[in-house]
Amino acid sequence: MKKPNSIDTPRTCSVARTIDILGDRWIFLILREAFFGVRYYDQFLSNLGIATNMLSNRLKRLVENGIMEKNKDSTDSRRMTYRLTEKGRDLYPVTLAFMQWGDRWLADEKGPPLLLFHKQCGHRLTPVMCCKHCGKVVDAKEVTYEERWKTF
Amino acid sequence: MKKPNSIDTPRTCSVARTIDILGDRWIFLILREAFFGVRYYDQFLSNLGIATNMLSNRLKRLVENGIMEKNKDSTDSRRMTYRLTEKGRDLYPVTLAFMQWGDRWLADEKGPPLLLFHKQCGHRLTPVMCCKHCGKVVDAKEVTYEERWKTF
Repeated sequence: MKKPNSIDTPRTCSVARTIDILGDRWIFLILREAFFGVRYYDQFLSNLGIATNMLSNRLKRLVENGIMEKNKDSTDSRRMTYRLTEKGRDLYPVTLAFMQWGDRWLADEKGPPLLLFHKQCGHRLTPVMCCKHCGKVVDAKEVTYEERWKTF
Repeated sequence: MKKPNSIDTPRTCSVARTIDILGDRWIFLILREAFFGVRYYDQFLSNLGIATNMLSNRLKRLVENGIMEKNKDSTDSRRMTYRLTEKGRDLYPVTLAFMQWGDRWLADEKGPPLLLFHKQCGHRLTPVMCCKHCGKVVDAKEVTYEERWKTF
């Protein structure tokens, strides 16, 4: 689903396409809540302080784009759950990248508002972007680009 | 700098703070171009197909937030350059996370429009989010959270 104001940039790339779907403050905050384990409409509503029409609209958009799925709650069929699909869970690196940057550059004297811990190793989690092949932390200067096709 | 429509969410976190600064399609596309090596106003203009007032506004915002710096070009003092600061370069994981997700979930039959290569190991770059401590790829299920303070 493209936003009405989206444009075809001369250099088409996955960054632009992704932003067309996710380029909305609320979308990211809903995703953040979902990664925190939030499943119910009223939980999203109270945690985010969002207006009901805005929340309904964004959840609809997330479901339409296959990022979340809406189902009857297994324990109470009158309630609906909103859960991340595989496509949605795959947005975890985006959420971590945002959080990590904010923690480093926007935290005030109180420090980061939220601490993350990595259960596997038991340490504070500092997420770093690595190369899947060699495992090294990726530095922008060590990356080259090859444009495969253009739209113009 | 907060956007006029920003709100204080009950659960303050670095995701929300980061989005307050970056939550704009153009900001991400300007950053993408900067990571591709673009330095000049007219290059941003032609690569993005953006209106001049929009571009000027976004570059100003990036400079005001310390993400880019504006300087006279060392070879032609009539031209200005816009370069990423350390704070700006530190947004590379965000850009990679967007691109990676788009490549996986939004590419059509032509495949990803842009290929990335990791010079250090010579392979196609598949960026993965890892734990800085143990080096393992981070799975959302393996992360726990500790809220240090709330604003409400």
